[in-house]
Amino acid sequence: MSLLAPQEPETTAQHAAPQAMEPRRTHGDMGPLEVRARRHHLIDVGDLDDDVVQRMWQRAKELQQREQRGIGTQLFGTLRGHVVATLFFEASTRTRLSFELAAQRLGALTLPLDVSRSSLEKSESLVDTLQTLAAMGATMAVVRHRDNAVFSNLGPQVGLSLLNAGNGTEAHPTQALLDAYTLWQQLGSLQDRVIVIHGDILHSRVARSNARLLARFGARVLLSGPADLLPSDAELAQLAGAQVCAFSDAIPQADAIMCLRVQRERHERAGLADAAVLRAAEATSFLHAHGLTQERFERAKPSCLILHPGPVNRDVEIEGTLVDHPRSQILQQVRNGLYIRMATLEWIAGVLP
Amino acid sequence: MSLLAPQEPETTAQHAAPQAMEPRRTHGDMGPLEVRARRHHLIDVGDLDDDVVQRMWQRAKELQQREQRGIGTQLFGTLRGHVVATLFFEASTRTRLSFELAAQRLGALTLPLDVSRSSLEKSESLVDTLQTLAAMGATMAVVRHRDNAVFSNLGPQVGLSLLNAGNGTEAHPTQALLDAYTLWQQLGSLQDRVIVIHGDILHSRVARSNARLLARFGARVLLSGPADLLPSDAELAQLAGAQVCAFSDAIPQADAIMCLRVQRERHERAGLADAAVLRAAEATSFLHAHGLTQERFERAKPSCLILHPGPVNRDVEIEGTLVDHPRSQILQQVRNGLYIRMATLEWIAGVLP
Amino acid sequence: MSLLAPQEPETTAQHAAPQAMEPRRTHGDMGPLEVRARRHHLIDVGDLDDDVVQRMWQRAKELQQREQRGIGTQLFGTLRGHVVATLFFEASTRTRLSFELAAQRLGALTLPLDVSRSSLEKSESLVDTLQTLAAMGATMAVVRHRDNAVFSNLGPQVGLSLLNAGNGTEAHPTQALLDAYTLWQQLGSLQDRVIVIHGDILHSRVARSNARLLARFGARVLLSGPADLLPSDAELAQLAGAQVCAFSDAIPQADAIMCLRVQRERHERAGLADAAVLRAAEATSFLHAHGLTQERFERAKPSCLILHPGPVNRDVEIEGTLVDHPRSQILQQVRNGLYIRMATLEWIAGVLP
Repeated sequence: MSLLAPQEPETTAQHAAPQAMEPRRTHGDMGPLEVRARRHHLIDVGDLDDDVVQRMWQRAKELQQREQRGIGTQLFGTLRGHVVATLFFEASTRTRLSFELAAQRLGALTLPLDVSRSSLEKSESLVDTLQTLAAMGATMAVVRHRDNAVFSNLGPQVGLSLLNAGNGTEAHPTQALLDAYTLWQQLGSLQDRVIVIHGDILHSRVARSNARLLARFGARVLLSGPADLLPSDAELAQLAGAQVCAFSDAIPQADAIMCLRVQRERHERAGLADAAVLRAAEATSFLHAHGLTQERFERAKPSCLILHPGPVNRDVEIEGTLVDHPRSQILQQVRNGLYIRMATLEWIAGVLP
Repeated sequence: MSLLAPQEPETTAQHAAPQAMEPRRTHGDMGPLEVRARRHHLIDVGDLDDDVVQRMWQRAKELQQREQRGIGTQLFGTLRGHVVATLFFEASTRTRLSFELAAQRLGALTLPLDVSRSSLEKSESLVDTLQTLAAMGATMAVVRHRDNAVFSNLGPQVGLSLLNAGNGTEAHPTQALLDAYTLWQQLGSLQDRVIVIHGDILHSRVARSNARLLARFGARVLLSGPADLLPSDAELAQLAGAQVCAFSDAIPQADAIMCLRVQRERHERAGLADAAVLRAAEATSFLHAHGLTQERFERAKPSCLILHPGPVNRDVEIEGTLVDHPRSQILQQVRNGLYIRMATLEWIAGVLP
Repeated sequence: MSLLAPQEPETTAQHAAPQAMEPRRTHGDMGPLEVRARRHHLIDVGDLDDDVVQRMWQRAKELQQREQRGIGTQLFGTLRGHVVATLFFEASTRTRLSFELAAQRLGALTLPLDVSRSSLEKSESLVDTLQTLAAMGATMAVVRHRDNAVFSNLGPQVGLSLLNAGNGTEAHPTQALLDAYTLWQQLGSLQDRVIVIHGDILHSRVARSNARLLARFGARVLLSGPADLLPSDAELAQLAGAQVCAFSDAIPQADAIMCLRVQRERHERAGLADAAVLRAAEATSFLHAHGLTQERFERAKPSCLILHPGPVNRDVEIEGTLVDHPRSQILQQVRNGLYIRMATLEWIAGVLP
């Protein structure tokens, strides 16, 4: 990825670079708030040191505890002066609202771009749009896009910090951060824990970012799903030691099972070969062939947790009753998502404690 | 309605219930602000004691007076820390903006869900969507829906307070509160006042909520309109003593005439039998057959007020010049709507003075 | 224009007028904030004295400098208590966001009306919509509309301040203010400077407002473009001394060249006769026939600036590389737009220093 060297702290030279590439700024100004904004980007979990990840988890926990003790939203002003633009080229109300609320709770203003109808989008390149938003005062852009290469195509001159809210089948770092945080909260540690990610691994950016992040904290990641929805051996080799495993073999070992959404839209778009899978999904016979049913879940350990990134197709990838199971973390994931995104925005802004 | 027992104060046991039903909350947290939020719902005017209604009117008056004295918006922080989601499954810019502005003026954040395009809506049940919003930090949801049964189908486990912004033909409590407030402001008291509600009563949630509320404060409610747009005798019996009356007989008795909007969309959807009514409406001959014309209004008392919940179809249900008549309260209703909704949100949050 | 007499200070009588025309306000209230809001309108640059324009430029500069010194957004509270509605009957994400952000940065609340889907728009006249917004608490409305006559049709009774964000081919005053501010910043003074406005002058409100404003500060305005996209002699006579000139003759004299966007939508809507122009534009051969190419720009003075109101069609009206040229002011214009709109909102509110 051309945007930044992961793990490497930004040097003064790197900070200066975007300015040097924009000679048109004859007044030496850097836009409203760029001067103060540390130019961090979050494209995938590799952009974050282990130490940073752990500080984010601590911060998420602290934010949550402060709110529970009744200390109101308005006390968090750590992002005051920031303007967070959201550009969702793939619709996702859930993730977009979570980011916007996180930003507002920290005192930032939000600039939600209605990408489907924006004249920016129609007539301009993404670089031009981002530069325009930066000139307008945006200090960060939260971008979701169907193209894996969307960020690597950008180059360093965009003038604001980029936050990946999901690119193609490649990465979804805040989802991985909140999933790992939820597991860490519940399990105490990820060391040697067995996390099963189940379903359409092939098309899932959630699976990829999770596999990369969980392995770094010592978890064993097992991937399972219908044969034609699993990654190739070549890709597996890059996925930080994650192993493919039959679902029936994975279940009894699991400390947590993360079900993935069957992404019908994506399948249809990709013209996926195995139409039988799709038809099965639509008939909910996908559930009985591949989903997490109550019957299958009975073979798991009594402490095994259930996760799902949402939105859930009840009775497709997971039996409806399991969504509401005592060990389901699904709403807890949504709740944690808010605090993890607040911590992420603080890191981007250079103010994460 | 299954949601709450109207008029009954919520007990500690009721407060605890949602938590008991969500065993997945292993950390004992109740979401960001639920701890502080009293779990009130407003589904119809029956959920409010007479005493609460009067406190709302007093509060609306006080808010309005404080603003007129130049004490700015930013002084009201009674909803700080709250997040108000709006879900309008039927479009209504006017009502949605009024709620969002009311929330923001009291210091709350707003989460406007674009329901027509939300992936939440498409793939999830309303319960799942509301639980997700609650997990994200929303403490209240303002819902408009075409289905009369939308709230009774929900059950108690939604995790936030519900505020009905209009459900089917059943209820629209904040509209009734603001209409009654406007009449109370202008007439001093509702006792023995004759309020004529005129037009398409059959499909009007505004008429139903108003009939129920006005009667409680001693008003005589007369319902008039085209014969096939009036409620059945069976329904009338439930409408708190409201009586059907010919418009020509009602006018001379009226202290106020509330005209209802001809809801063409709703008629079309319902496949309403009497197509003649519709065609007439479109040709504005509805006005002369059934509407409030200047000629008809001349037969009213000199003090008779004109109300309309808006948006107005000028020269359909009411002659355009009457909209701008000195005794028209139509803009005053919009103005009062803001303050009534502020007071309503404060009641929901448990902070109404 | 019926709305206000340009340059004439509003008298007490004028202030009282709207109230007198709205006798339905029996309580003597003027809506939440009208009491404090000075009722200024900005329909075109003629509504602003030279002195006001210069105070706006000074204020924009001051706001920009304060932010650069690290004094945060949240310190500007000059619009606290105001509610700014935006009604864009023609889509323009860029301008709408710039206004909304400017309002929020000054502490105002914003009411963005989704005009394409609003029930207000469908069933009501613009006057009714504006009066409703005013009753809801809006103190200003930022309006973009395709109709030249949209404001002159309104009359004085709308109950809030109007801010023209572009009407038909007539005027776009904040764009002219920010363009002139950018030139003033860069050139020190506009006196005797040659400003070339190039492209589709005929359909351009940007060209018209700029021609009127720049001339007032002593600039010589040259208009160039394809023959059938130039204004008639009759119109030219009204454009404050602006002269038509061949592009090749204009370039060597120019202190700045302002390229206009080829507005394909507008051409199509107008059924513009010269379809060849359109086809050429689409094939980017428009660039070579009429656009600002690097080759043409080499004939300009070494200090000549490049402006464009955006969004840019790269390689249609301007060669892509010139957009990123050291003397391009295009992003600077966006940046200045924010501060100019902040100053404009302050003037409307009667609090411009």
